[in-house]
Amino acid sequence: MREIIIDALGSDAGPQMVRDAIIKARSKIDFKATIVGPEGFFSDLLDDYEDFSLIDCNSFITNDESPALAIRRKKDSSTVLALNKLNERGDVFLTAGSTGALLAGGYFISKRLDNCKRACLAPTIPNINGDLIMADVGASMDVDPETLLQFAKITSAYAEKVLNKKNPALGLLNIGSEADKGDKRSRETFELLSASKLNFIGNIESRDIISCQADVIISEGFSGNIALKAMEGTAKELLSILKKTLMQNAKTKLAGLLIKNDLKKALSNLDYKKHGGAPLLGVKKALYKAHGNSNADSFALAIEEAINFAESGLMDYLREM
Amino acid sequence: MREIIIDALGSDAGPQMVRDAIIKARSKIDFKATIVGPEGFFSDLLDDYEDFSLIDCNSFITNDESPALAIRRKKDSSTVLALNKLNERGDVFLTAGSTGALLAGGYFISKRLDNCKRACLAPTIPNINGDLIMADVGASMDVDPETLLQFAKITSAYAEKVLNKKNPALGLLNIGSEADKGDKRSRETFELLSASKLNFIGNIESRDIISCQADVIISEGFSGNIALKAMEGTAKELLSILKKTLMQNAKTKLAGLLIKNDLKKALSNLDYKKHGGAPLLGVKKALYKAHGNSNADSFALAIEEAINFAESGLMDYLREM
Repeated sequence: MREIIIDALGSDAGPQMVRDAIIKARSKIDFKATIVGPEGFFSDLLDDYEDFSLIDCNSFITNDESPALAIRRKKDSSTVLALNKLNERGDVFLTAGSTGALLAGGYFISKRLDNCKRACLAPTIPNINGDLIMADVGASMDVDPETLLQFAKITSAYAEKVLNKKNPALGLLNIGSEADKGDKRSRETFELLSASKLNFIGNIESRDIISCQADVIISEGFSGNIALKAMEGTAKELLSILKKTLMQNAKTKLAGLLIKNDLKKALSNLDYKKHGGAPLLGVKKALYKAHGNSNADSFALAIEEAINFAESGLMDYLREM
Repeated sequence: MREIIIDALGSDAGPQMVRDAIIKARSKIDFKATIVGPEGFFSDLLDDYEDFSLIDCNSFITNDESPALAIRRKKDSSTVLALNKLNERGDVFLTAGSTGALLAGGYFISKRLDNCKRACLAPTIPNINGDLIMADVGASMDVDPETLLQFAKITSAYAEKVLNKKNPALGLLNIGSEADKGDKRSRETFELLSASKLNFIGNIESRDIISCQADVIISEGFSGNIALKAMEGTAKELLSILKKTLMQNAKTKLAGLLIKNDLKKALSNLDYKKHGGAPLLGVKKALYKAHGNSNADSFALAIEEAINFAESGLMDYLREM
């Protein structure tokens, strides 16, 4: 049975939500857990589940702190305690806390994989054909083409071993389809990916992310973040306009009733809440990041995804790659 | 009366569309025109409008050619003939042809503005509050922070002099709101913009482009292009899903009838066809780019916008800046 180390602090909702999520997830799948959080919230859980243990902790690293400094100084923070524990035992760490702290902790405590200069965050992003992974979306800035090739290798391995995509089709986020398009970094990365053994299918423009057939899109962290949030913002605004229009008067309210179910179904593939979190790849341990604004349902989903990640054998594969 | 030099070739639709657009625009506003295109399409127009003249031309630079090479070698192409003419006389050049050719022609024939190392394309992009300009969206890659400051100055001047925005609010496209967010280039650009006399309101995340209050967003060309196309692709896909859902069955078709007009009105601010084109800023002449897939309506709109650009006095201001 796999052991997950769970940061009960750092999410927007706090330890009660995490407690609910753990109970929810444990009712569906088996796992051992080490919970890092305030004892009061979890002591009775330890009686109910003999595979659970607790590291009492009341401090976490906030989004406002310098992550590198905080990892070095706040030795009693949930991130530091959890990652130190993961070096001793356990299979995967899950947190809804600061991404920066997770990244810094990954570098300083879990340590980089050999051949990985940097780490990438690889979420599943909206695509009408189903699951699509994009990496990096903002963990690492100012990376070179060799690092992007490394991101392509580890993210493709994740898609294959964890998400069961066979020979995943890999695209490069760029501003045109031809090999010579884009900035210097993109053109050099295109060459490296073409020469690699990966299933590289070429450049993908951001307008096609939502409808493309790729399994994995590789992007430099700055523009990957820009693409992802531009899609989120546009979708949110359009759906909000639609909602407002449907509430406008008796006629449009009726229209709303008539299409509600069909529309919900048609949009379901684009719902980012279908996924609880994303892996941080490039370090020696399995690290999994849940949404900061997780509720118990999505955090429970993240627990299941993290356990699936731990069970895949990906980390053994990456450490030997 | 202002004189516009019009490339009748290079658009997807061809010279007949341009002919229709010229007649349409001329019925609304006054202008002189020099048309660069096949004589057969335009000879009768020269009889009808005494202020029109023609440069007979049957060659244009395609999107597949190397723009810099083509500008040097294809001396009989519409872009080269038009830009040479603009150095002699006329106020603005309008084309729906290759952006690369326009950029290369701008550099080699119109020449850069003093203090401008590069040029930027500055379209109006979807925003629920009305007109928002973003520059650059893909004309110039691998630019430095000083160049982005220059883009900020010339695009703010465009917003003020051509679009009549008083003291335009300027944002920087970035992946977070704090000054220390983003890659090295973004952080350095943030400092330069903060120290400038421009009305800099800080970083703008791509998720907020569609709803922000800025008048101008400055972006490096690669990520600007990524942001813009991610928004376009998402909007297109969501509206296509909505349309398909509304055509699904009798119930949803009725809903479609009930909301059609209200929805169209609610989405009207986001319609990119509201604008016919965008200026290429950073060179000594007024260059205006229409959509490659323009129809007669949007190209006619682009003619009006280009004449407005020519009448604004912006180029005199920029040349002396």
